[in-house]
Amino acid sequence: MAKVLAYLGPPGTFTEAAAIRYDGSAQLMPLMSIFAVGAAVRSGMAQEGMVPIENSLEGSVNDTLDLLINERALCLRYELAMPIEHCLLVRPGTKAADIQAVYSHPQALGQCRSFIERCFPKAQVIAAMSTVAAVEEVKSSSGISAAIAPERAAHLHGMEILARGIQESPNNMTRFVVLSTQDHPPTGEDKTSLCFSFADDKAGLLYSVMGEFALRGINLTKVESRPTKESLGRYIFLVDLEGHREDPLVKEALNGVGKMVSNLRLFGSYPRWRTSLTNQ
Amino acid sequence: MAKVLAYLGPPGTFTEAAAIRYDGSAQLMPLMSIFAVGAAVRSGMAQEGMVPIENSLEGSVNDTLDLLINERALCLRYELAMPIEHCLLVRPGTKAADIQAVYSHPQALGQCRSFIERCFPKAQVIAAMSTVAAVEEVKSSSGISAAIAPERAAHLHGMEILARGIQESPNNMTRFVVLSTQDHPPTGEDKTSLCFSFADDKAGLLYSVMGEFALRGINLTKVESRPTKESLGRYIFLVDLEGHREDPLVKEALNGVGKMVSNLRLFGSYPRWRTSLTNQ
Repeated sequence: MAKVLAYLGPPGTFTEAAAIRYDGSAQLMPLMSIFAVGAAVRSGMAQEGMVPIENSLEGSVNDTLDLLINERALCLRYELAMPIEHCLLVRPGTKAADIQAVYSHPQALGQCRSFIERCFPKAQVIAAMSTVAAVEEVKSSSGISAAIAPERAAHLHGMEILARGIQESPNNMTRFVVLSTQDHPPTGEDKTSLCFSFADDKAGLLYSVMGEFALRGINLTKVESRPTKESLGRYIFLVDLEGHREDPLVKEALNGVGKMVSNLRLFGSYPRWRTSLTNQ
Repeated sequence: MAKVLAYLGPPGTFTEAAAIRYDGSAQLMPLMSIFAVGAAVRSGMAQEGMVPIENSLEGSVNDTLDLLINERALCLRYELAMPIEHCLLVRPGTKAADIQAVYSHPQALGQCRSFIERCFPKAQVIAAMSTVAAVEEVKSSSGISAAIAPERAAHLHGMEILARGIQESPNNMTRFVVLSTQDHPPTGEDKTSLCFSFADDKAGLLYSVMGEFALRGINLTKVESRPTKESLGRYIFLVDLEGHREDPLVKEALNGVGKMVSNLRLFGSYPRWRTSLTNQ
């Protein structure tokens, strides 16, 4: 039986494209929220789940970080990074000059702001719940309109692509992660993700933690502090490091860190993504 | 002549409430984006500008961080933190039982998801460009609907409040900052914000930077890494610390840091916000 791979849907999103790239033979299960993907994996309804974790323009995906921080049964098993290219989709035969409204999720509208202002200065800009919901609005609307959405949504919904790569920055990349109940065995080129917090905020505690890694030559590829939901002044620290949690030096460092912090949660180890590599 | 204080509008937003709390006698200038507020301050059209920088549920406000990183003429002059309370607004006389659609910005809809699901399981949930735009949609829509928006938007638009505090978490706080072309003189209880990046990502560089602060007993209240817009793997680090940039130890530490990093940008020093304090 094929593995069930849940993902943040609906079909046609960039996350679906990442899921297909990761495992084209899996049985894909689109779900409507990142938390639903987490629940599907935790409960065994899906073996794995694909969610976005970080975008080069927008920063971290908060729901995914919250899920990892709070759902102790979930691990990271894989990561992959993909370029995000927004397209302008219309009903087949629509002419650009006739477009009176542009629909999309506010984030995509923001990323394509100067394209819209230059090409459609008089169009109404209308928010949708997702890029795919925007396509559905355009399909069913009585007026002549366009949606900003991924290329794949055009194929799935029988829409025509009028323009490609309309986002501001050519370097719009999203990092996706695969959630599972087990992380990945060592491959020799791995990353490990974790989070921790402190019972009090004495000067230098974070510095001591980072010393455990620095003194062993372990490179940190990401350090992020995130306000706890309890209050603005207290933080949870999220760290990505190079190496596998079973590497002797990483193991030593994590042991040391565990003694300094009040909550250490290991999200797991997984192969480090190399953009040039053909995976799977 | 009254000081002109630009803010992220439109009127009725939480940012307007923060602007009034900060300086009730200023001439308020609502602008439609965080970048517009930055441009107004940089060009002298406004003396100061109020923007959100961090929310306890959603994390950092990316546009504000981008503005600070890229606009060298802008400084931080003040901070304040305010609780965010979402309300359910309707046209006067509307009964809850008749509501068929709920409008708001996707972020506010997300923060009130369980309230909507429990109280309005059959209502259509519709995205708007902002909470205030949602109120305008409800005012002008032919159907019977409600908007999720701040209390102040109800007063400004003559709407009725059916429910208050409908967000998931009771600890929904937003930190706002005042942008100016000069930061704040020392008060004895200050914070300083800065960012830096590294030319290469050798292990331990960030650790060495943090050592400059830790060894002088300077507490870091926030450390955040943010992908640069150039690529996912490279980061800009944002740091908040306790103390004023004119304090001798802070000055020493910043000198040391300046020699280690490839780009050091000081956003400025400003009085530390204390929730219990009555400011201004």
